[in-house]
Amino acid sequence: MSPANQDLWVSERFKDAVETRWRVKETLYHAQSEFQTVDIVDTEFWGRMLLLDGLVMTTEKDEHTYHEMITHTPMLAHPNPKQVLVIGGGDGGTIREVLKHPSVERAVLCEIDQLVIDSSREFLPSIAGALDDPRVDIQVRDGAAYIAQHANTFDVILIDSTDPIGPGARLFNHEFYTNVKNALSEQGVMAAQTESPISQPSEVREINTLLNGVFPVVKTYTNMIPTYPGNQWTWTFCSKQQGPFDLVDAKRVEAIEKTCRVFNRHVHRAIFALPNYIQEMIAPHSFLYAKQSEPLSV
Amino acid sequence: MSPANQDLWVSERFKDAVETRWRVKETLYHAQSEFQTVDIVDTEFWGRMLLLDGLVMTTEKDEHTYHEMITHTPMLAHPNPKQVLVIGGGDGGTIREVLKHPSVERAVLCEIDQLVIDSSREFLPSIAGALDDPRVDIQVRDGAAYIAQHANTFDVILIDSTDPIGPGARLFNHEFYTNVKNALSEQGVMAAQTESPISQPSEVREINTLLNGVFPVVKTYTNMIPTYPGNQWTWTFCSKQQGPFDLVDAKRVEAIEKTCRVFNRHVHRAIFALPNYIQEMIAPHSFLYAKQSEPLSV
Repeated sequence: MSPANQDLWVSERFKDAVETRWRVKETLYHAQSEFQTVDIVDTEFWGRMLLLDGLVMTTEKDEHTYHEMITHTPMLAHPNPKQVLVIGGGDGGTIREVLKHPSVERAVLCEIDQLVIDSSREFLPSIAGALDDPRVDIQVRDGAAYIAQHANTFDVILIDSTDPIGPGARLFNHEFYTNVKNALSEQGVMAAQTESPISQPSEVREINTLLNGVFPVVKTYTNMIPTYPGNQWTWTFCSKQQGPFDLVDAKRVEAIEKTCRVFNRHVHRAIFALPNYIQEMIAPHSFLYAKQSEPLSV
Repeated sequence: MSPANQDLWVSERFKDAVETRWRVKETLYHAQSEFQTVDIVDTEFWGRMLLLDGLVMTTEKDEHTYHEMITHTPMLAHPNPKQVLVIGGGDGGTIREVLKHPSVERAVLCEIDQLVIDSSREFLPSIAGALDDPRVDIQVRDGAAYIAQHANTFDVILIDSTDPIGPGARLFNHEFYTNVKNALSEQGVMAAQTESPISQPSEVREINTLLNGVFPVVKTYTNMIPTYPGNQWTWTFCSKQQGPFDLVDAKRVEAIEKTCRVFNRHVHRAIFALPNYIQEMIAPHSFLYAKQSEPLSV
């Protein structure tokens, strides 16, 4: 190993003001796809890390929070999810969590970039391994176009997208979310990653307004991702009717929590307790903001 | 401004594997005290930042989570906190939160390093301003020695310490916590910052074992601090008898949440919902770990 390699780091910066660097043991993969650069490096602390256009998407050691959060809240809110669609998420982590629910008959992965799938399969087997499950239907194509063609089809839709720049930009507008709503079955629910209230507060606000313009039920939840800029992250649950706990089955929660690194019955509810500053950011649409003025029952 | 200053950054590294850097607009203060180096810099993103021995202690824009978390859970668990002791915390942020509780008659700040207090007063007025309140009694001395001399004195004790290295090392042992317990009044409670389960898992485990060796009630809670290594942080509530919610008064919670940036009635409870991986780290002492096998009531 050359002296230069002994001090190799990968880094991500936001607002040209905060930068996080991770020591790299080995670079495993680098390619330029039709859509973006795809890199996989083995980092000293977080294990293998996938970057798209130089932005961290997932790491072997902190991927659980993101994938458990985007998946289990909506999956458990549906009484019997059989048909599931994941848009984006070519690393396979969200599909892996979806397949933990035994009711699932078909899990469609609609990922625009074949190279993300291929490189994850080769270098991130603990994340992408579930892609080989026979229930998985991989569609390498544009998620926005795919969803427009599948009305009333899915019980659960998960928008596991990159940021609203690059190939992910088409997944952040009124038409797209209207098509998502139309693609849901009657009791269908969806969840999307909805950015960081710390590094991207205006995006959090805009997406929340967008979702409230489409769905009757919109409830934002939060957790933390150490390798994402700002660290505090949000996801948003949406449905045509039920809230995230209206139809929850305790036995299903119990079965899922045993398989998770973060999620459990308590975390399931705690993630909806938004700090005041996030509530203010998305007011008047916040789940709990309205409740804030209700009588206390501590 | 020299070209060098135009690209000035301050950084903190952990395990020689992860480093976060913050762009600096201006260096405001640098001194070597009897105990440690004390720096205050004005960062582009987080505002002014206090560092001790090169480690980030607090910033103007993310200090609220830390100070609200260490303070309000124990303060609200005591029915009528009049005498309060903060050990460490020379920046004054914890004292500021303590003084939001109108029952407080005296808040002792026992900080070993006069320079931390002086520099915070000069450069971090939004954090240290409350130190001028007439209820505050500043004791510039060793917290371990102070507490050994004050049996049965305080309703609430908050251990707002640095890491278990340097001047903070004396605050992480059985004798110290035994003296803390002895310094509490009959219904007295305490909380301590108890490190990061991500960057310092063995410290989290060790402190938890220590506290369980001294206090009948030990309950760890969590939140995230973007400028701390690992980002996920823990604090631990301890008492001789009551749990954190046994004696909570809803009206007091309501009054406090109105003054906070993070804390509210929902966050108050949600922070005790530990992710599975933290529960496993501190098992068998975890608050919720035992409950995990109880019947579900979702």
